[in-house]
Amino acid sequence: MYQHLTHIESPADLKKMKPEQLPELAAEVRQFLLDMVSVTGGHLGSNLGTVELSIALLYCFDSPRDKIIWDVGHQAYTHKILTGRRDRFHTQRQYKGLSGFPKRSESEHDAFGVGHSSTSISAALGMAAAADLSGSRNHSIAVIGDGSLTGGMAFEALNQAGHLKKNLVVILNDNEMSISKNVGAFSSFISRKMTGKYFRDLKKEMQGLLRNIPAIGSDILHFAKRAENSLKGFLTPGSLFEALGFDYLGPLDGHDLPQLIEVFNNITQLDGPLLVHVLTTKGKGYQPAEQNPDKFHGVGAFDLATGKGTAKGSVKSYTDLFGEAMLDLAEQDPKVVAITAAMRDGTGLKTFSERFPKRFFDVGIAEQHGMTFAAGLAAEGFRPVTAIYSTFVQRAYDQVFHDICLQHLPVTIAMDRAGLVGDDGPTHHGVMDYSYLRHLPGLTLMAPKDENELRHMLKTAVCSGVPITLRYPRGAGQGVALDRDLKILEIGRGEVLREGSDLCIIAIGSTVYPALQAAQTLHVQGISAGVVNARFIKPLDAELILSVAGSCGRIMTVEENVLQGGFGSAVLELLNDNAMQHVRIKRLGIPDRFVEQGSQARLRQDLGIDAEGIAAAARLFLKS
Amino acid sequence: MYQHLTHIESPADLKKMKPEQLPELAAEVRQFLLDMVSVTGGHLGSNLGTVELSIALLYCFDSPRDKIIWDVGHQAYTHKILTGRRDRFHTQRQYKGLSGFPKRSESEHDAFGVGHSSTSISAALGMAAAADLSGSRNHSIAVIGDGSLTGGMAFEALNQAGHLKKNLVVILNDNEMSISKNVGAFSSFISRKMTGKYFRDLKKEMQGLLRNIPAIGSDILHFAKRAENSLKGFLTPGSLFEALGFDYLGPLDGHDLPQLIEVFNNITQLDGPLLVHVLTTKGKGYQPAEQNPDKFHGVGAFDLATGKGTAKGSVKSYTDLFGEAMLDLAEQDPKVVAITAAMRDGTGLKTFSERFPKRFFDVGIAEQHGMTFAAGLAAEGFRPVTAIYSTFVQRAYDQVFHDICLQHLPVTIAMDRAGLVGDDGPTHHGVMDYSYLRHLPGLTLMAPKDENELRHMLKTAVCSGVPITLRYPRGAGQGVALDRDLKILEIGRGEVLREGSDLCIIAIGSTVYPALQAAQTLHVQGISAGVVNARFIKPLDAELILSVAGSCGRIMTVEENVLQGGFGSAVLELLNDNAMQHVRIKRLGIPDRFVEQGSQARLRQDLGIDAEGIAAAARLFLKS
Repeated sequence: MYQHLTHIESPADLKKMKPEQLPELAAEVRQFLLDMVSVTGGHLGSNLGTVELSIALLYCFDSPRDKIIWDVGHQAYTHKILTGRRDRFHTQRQYKGLSGFPKRSESEHDAFGVGHSSTSISAALGMAAAADLSGSRNHSIAVIGDGSLTGGMAFEALNQAGHLKKNLVVILNDNEMSISKNVGAFSSFISRKMTGKYFRDLKKEMQGLLRNIPAIGSDILHFAKRAENSLKGFLTPGSLFEALGFDYLGPLDGHDLPQLIEVFNNITQLDGPLLVHVLTTKGKGYQPAEQNPDKFHGVGAFDLATGKGTAKGSVKSYTDLFGEAMLDLAEQDPKVVAITAAMRDGTGLKTFSERFPKRFFDVGIAEQHGMTFAAGLAAEGFRPVTAIYSTFVQRAYDQVFHDICLQHLPVTIAMDRAGLVGDDGPTHHGVMDYSYLRHLPGLTLMAPKDENELRHMLKTAVCSGVPITLRYPRGAGQGVALDRDLKILEIGRGEVLREGSDLCIIAIGSTVYPALQAAQTLHVQGISAGVVNARFIKPLDAELILSVAGSCGRIMTVEENVLQGGFGSAVLELLNDNAMQHVRIKRLGIPDRFVEQGSQARLRQDLGIDAEGIAAAARLFLKS
Repeated sequence: MYQHLTHIESPADLKKMKPEQLPELAAEVRQFLLDMVSVTGGHLGSNLGTVELSIALLYCFDSPRDKIIWDVGHQAYTHKILTGRRDRFHTQRQYKGLSGFPKRSESEHDAFGVGHSSTSISAALGMAAAADLSGSRNHSIAVIGDGSLTGGMAFEALNQAGHLKKNLVVILNDNEMSISKNVGAFSSFISRKMTGKYFRDLKKEMQGLLRNIPAIGSDILHFAKRAENSLKGFLTPGSLFEALGFDYLGPLDGHDLPQLIEVFNNITQLDGPLLVHVLTTKGKGYQPAEQNPDKFHGVGAFDLATGKGTAKGSVKSYTDLFGEAMLDLAEQDPKVVAITAAMRDGTGLKTFSERFPKRFFDVGIAEQHGMTFAAGLAAEGFRPVTAIYSTFVQRAYDQVFHDICLQHLPVTIAMDRAGLVGDDGPTHHGVMDYSYLRHLPGLTLMAPKDENELRHMLKTAVCSGVPITLRYPRGAGQGVALDRDLKILEIGRGEVLREGSDLCIIAIGSTVYPALQAAQTLHVQGISAGVVNARFIKPLDAELILSVAGSCGRIMTVEENVLQGGFGSAVLELLNDNAMQHVRIKRLGIPDRFVEQGSQARLRQDLGIDAEGIAAAARLFLKS
């Protein structure tokens, strides 16, 4: 079935193949990807788009000596399959299996770990600088999508790269038509010649031609100089990159293996910062994915024949309910606007964007700018809701500090995918936000126990008039009934869900229901455990917490966040500042290590923050 | 002396002046700036460069209806002086005086608070979007330097702005020759005409001309289209901005008031995203500053006649000794490289950059990229030291997480200006780094008690082979003797500086010497206070802390960092996790509010973390 593929255990095996066999290999890889991802789920469209590009890179360059860095990395499946990980590929994104992203600890061919966007050029430039200092002649290659190029740090890196003039190759994997594309065959022709022997001749010819354009006005000298500078922009669509000091090649057809191989082989002889513009099609070769690239970006298991998902979910997700609540709020208040950073669908804002197109802003993969853009809107009286996954809000930490909190502007930051996200693993878990946000003066931090409370918290946030965040988990809600109307919660007020006398479990967000279950288990075992839903990480409900601490004498905090500086620490600080040292406190949460991938349930179990873990910890705590 | 200036209390007064009087006003403002800043200190060069630009903006636009946002804001003195703050200007950067930066709470003419770089376009775009939604026809204007444009979020904002097509004006204040400048009179001529009535005619004429260039090859249609698209790049040096969807005007002479006013008046009639390229000279009109722009960027009090500083400092700064230690380490190990984000001199790396030019990298105002660039170098076996002020490391929080810690790469992050920085105020205090870094797995956090320990910590960091940070204060060291050789400290090991039985003060970084002084004061008053220099925020010296806690029963932690999630919280967590709740703990540090500007000494006194404050808190603590 996989005639060629089964013999490829490393790039060395790949290099033994004849160029004309490579398209057959590409077809096999594509089939392999479909066979695997339709069972395990994962990123599909982007990987079907990079089959030829991955093959050509490993065929022409010399990995691991040459460094290949895939930006974000969710398009590096072919790279993994061809670098000794084919046999384990069925474990990808599973507990203890292969990562869905390149990872240094997984293979020497993964030159740099990725997951968050727009880092590849910076890392590759660092490696190019290292090669230069070491006197090595190897190449550093960053493969970056047009979307990732909207991230500011990619520009920062391009800017320095053009100045440093190291041996860096940036491959722009352009699959979204978001960058100027009035190009086609002519330009493709040019680019291949530019990398080959005709390059110099052609360039001179064109320069001569342009020099003959009659000068306008009196300042011939200036004009001639300008004409010359414009030559490159004139020849190629890459004036943006040329302005940043790169040589530009392309665009190339990213599915034309012979062309890719010709150009890449030429590149291995070239120096200096080079940008190669490659056009690829998301979902290439699989009809349902080509037609619906959004739907097939990340998928669960699906039926190959129809493209339809095989998993069934009946309970609405937090994301869905966030999106619905946003619609209600926008109907009620014309000042409510929504901002997303290239995650319209992922954050549940698709319908909002259709219903309120003028009040919806997708800033691109640009969390920093998005946060300050929201601050600008808030300064002018609007009520922006910036919906960004918890792990990506990390990119905008300084903007939350400097532009929102310092000016106390009423921006709502809705952090989806907070806590353990599951299959995407350590780059994507959102388990630090309590800790990196809690110390920002004037910022309110909330986390709902369920999807109904999420809706009220969103209303609370939008009406609060202060900088405020709410974080909620990836995936299905608790399946609770939804109140008809959204209501405003009192800021800094928690709720007692269950009275208890032996200890009180103070839970927050996703740990509230497990805490309730644990209390029930403990009850059966003769232990009386109270449960408080804290609702607010900041401001804490000091009155309530001090009261239950005083009456129980034992407090257990549970959070899906790191223990250092998190919710439990806030409670510790509160009790200590109030001289309650006679109260015993046990904090449950994420320990001081990175958490690997796996299902959310499995990870919560491992970390002891599911119902069973909480009950066990409580029993141990009471014995101590 | 200030014939015109004394009559200007608001932009309305300015608008009453005749255009031909404005150059006289500019001369007066310049003199006023020199008179003031030579006494108070502050940013000089950049402000002398923006006198005419500030006047023209307030003269032509309608602030506060039109929003003027100065990026970074240390060049907005003229703006402040002309918007009702002239009489208080002598208080700038002083305790309870005017801020050195625009601030919303200070004036309605400060449309958005600034301090950190590259935020202005995002904020202005948010305001332009707000105006659009509100149906208002006002302008949003971001004034951004060419340096700030290297910050990624500025590109993120330009990228979205070109797409959104709101009524946004970006003024590029180009004073460093870092952006292509082969322009001159011709282009300047063009730009003025482009804003006026000749614009359309000229453009059409040029299009016709270019259409007549003979097509090459067969694909005439494509070529003609490309030629047309190249027209603008052909006419102006702004192809970079045009590629991002902006109309480009310039470059203009930023000191030519009649020209600025003609163009700005034209702009008030234009729509859409517009980039105006203005050339200014740092230090304009003051010879010593024009000749030494670096030296006159930020100054203390100085003698107007000679340009020489009047303050005398004999003790070397932490920055100086960091720079010297870097030289030693680089001599010893060829793998040591240094990275700075546009702060070569400020971080003490000037001599390093001259002695080891190939091992020194200035990435521009690009902290995100700089951090990941360092990670790339570390991945290839180098020992990068990234020197960035604490407040600006905030920009790279995600990169520290994602590219350094997650891959456990041995990057040293040297955080200068940590703690209270003084005159620059809340945007620049570095009082959060313990809290936003402490929860990152595998990251070591150090803070030296004095400049000698700083040197050893730097050596320790570079030799550690792990991700590691050290933070040290702005300003003079303690004046201690320097060990001849740099030595490696044991990671996670503090030191007992003084034994005591009534309580133990566990101090870190800049608070260690004040704690020692406090202990001496307490000793005289009959109180026996021990002092521990913790050295490490992470990993804590658990053994030592648990031991002194056990023997004293009372611990007081002191840090120049926010109390939420900081060093004291780490100690709290440690004691709680070790069931030491019989130990009483008092935490001193920065409370949960933004700290305003003022001298470091004054602020430390206000916050009770100087020797006197610590002693007073200890007495109170013992009484409780």
